[in-house]
Amino acid sequence: MSRFSNVAIVGGTHGNEFSGIYALKQWQSNPAITARDSFSTEHVFANPSAYSANKRYVDCDLNRQFDPKLLADYSLANYEQSRAKALNQQLGPKGDPRVDFIIDLHNTTSNMGPTLILLTLDMFNKQLAAYISERMPDAIILVEDHIEPIQHAFLCSVGKQGVIVEVGPQPQSVLRHDVMESMQEMTTHILDFVHLFNIDKVPALPKSITAYRYKETLHLPQNAHGERIGMVHQHVQDKDFQPIQPGEPLFMCFDGTELAWQGDYTAYPHFINEAAYYDNNIAMSMANVFTLTV
Amino acid sequence: MSRFSNVAIVGGTHGNEFSGIYALKQWQSNPAITARDSFSTEHVFANPSAYSANKRYVDCDLNRQFDPKLLADYSLANYEQSRAKALNQQLGPKGDPRVDFIIDLHNTTSNMGPTLILLTLDMFNKQLAAYISERMPDAIILVEDHIEPIQHAFLCSVGKQGVIVEVGPQPQSVLRHDVMESMQEMTTHILDFVHLFNIDKVPALPKSITAYRYKETLHLPQNAHGERIGMVHQHVQDKDFQPIQPGEPLFMCFDGTELAWQGDYTAYPHFINEAAYYDNNIAMSMANVFTLTV
Repeated sequence: MSRFSNVAIVGGTHGNEFSGIYALKQWQSNPAITARDSFSTEHVFANPSAYSANKRYVDCDLNRQFDPKLLADYSLANYEQSRAKALNQQLGPKGDPRVDFIIDLHNTTSNMGPTLILLTLDMFNKQLAAYISERMPDAIILVEDHIEPIQHAFLCSVGKQGVIVEVGPQPQSVLRHDVMESMQEMTTHILDFVHLFNIDKVPALPKSITAYRYKETLHLPQNAHGERIGMVHQHVQDKDFQPIQPGEPLFMCFDGTELAWQGDYTAYPHFINEAAYYDNNIAMSMANVFTLTV
Repeated sequence: MSRFSNVAIVGGTHGNEFSGIYALKQWQSNPAITARDSFSTEHVFANPSAYSANKRYVDCDLNRQFDPKLLADYSLANYEQSRAKALNQQLGPKGDPRVDFIIDLHNTTSNMGPTLILLTLDMFNKQLAAYISERMPDAIILVEDHIEPIQHAFLCSVGKQGVIVEVGPQPQSVLRHDVMESMQEMTTHILDFVHLFNIDKVPALPKSITAYRYKETLHLPQNAHGERIGMVHQHVQDKDFQPIQPGEPLFMCFDGTELAWQGDYTAYPHFINEAAYYDNNIAMSMANVFTLTV
């Protein structure tokens, strides 16, 4: 695997996720923090208009616009569709990009702690995951490899490699000290690892770690008119990445009915009650747990 | 004190505070829950356009528009300024209102638990506070009587009497099961108390309870250009209504400097890091604690 020459740290892909935006400001005023000898680091503010509007996005979710088909469709011309094309030009183009590694910084209102989201499980990502897990025992490794990286619609899929640093819980438009520190810590470890990888000095790593793999998305209960008729049950609220068995309560309907987890497997819910997903009536994602062999 | 004939429960004064909005929906479809024999109950959705836009407000904060001077100024004509005049007509007019009692339902991103906000400390409110405190030991009684009720800009000041039910923590645009239950419980107790008061059957109450009185508002640290240079310190984050002594850390600046509480009294911070107050660069409010003698 070739070395990484150009690393981009991206913040503000969603305009009301403040940790990445304020982390960028700090790093821009003190570039030494994110500089490493073996690569160049650039800082990219992805969605400044959404930040100015204090919203996740102006017209549509920027972090769903990097599917190659969408990038190639010039009839898609609203603000985020245009930003995606500009960022693809700036960092990519996707498939043959200038930037070797993208770290995209995100917050969630869900209680996910510091989560590293990987789009694929190649040797580099496995070692990175093990390196992070060892240094941040509370960190979650979440793999979203249900589609090929090139087909992903996430911003970080534009680079040769890319990861998402997702830290919660933090309400939209709030800056929490603890969440900020957690995001900076994980980002620093990632930069350190890329540097060690570049100079062929990856330290001894754990042989295996616990990781989670995205499996499916669950929606809030609705009636025939598409109106929400229930909410996430307090039995699972805040319990991201804790196991839930078939039959355990998942939703509380407003009429008092409890709805149970109907799957046929032990699931690890995450993005539980994420504010931004209400647009699509999404309640949470479900994952499997697995042992990642490094 | 005369009895209460008309009670209005108001939700959605802020469009992204979901508990009150969804509570109203439930009560509207099952009015028996909020009905009591001694008064009529009406349900009012204060800011439907802000809810449709999934925002706190469309043009300006509706819950700051009920100052008599603002209500009388017909040149103030944006959406919330117009809604305020319409609500004043519907529930008031302020000073000589049709509605005797307003319960205005709110959420905060701050860790305030179930908080009952009172605008004055007359005998009715003292008894109400004691009644709530006894039934919900975790409830906070917060008094904002630094100005006369008639001068308050809050929606609930339009009624002969009015209170705010403020429950957190809940991110904007999220519906938490636990927060919903807490709001419904407090509202039910308030309705019960109004009924008992009306029929002259107020039960024996605690002689005194602990309460808090608003004292001042603190802003986030800014530089000379008005840019935010720090955040709420994790030493106080989530510790609403816990005492802070002069000299204890309050803010963490992005350059690593800690800023301490500079006041000359033991303060009880609340609305700590409330997302909605970032518009005005507000970090938190400070209160005194006192013993409320009933």
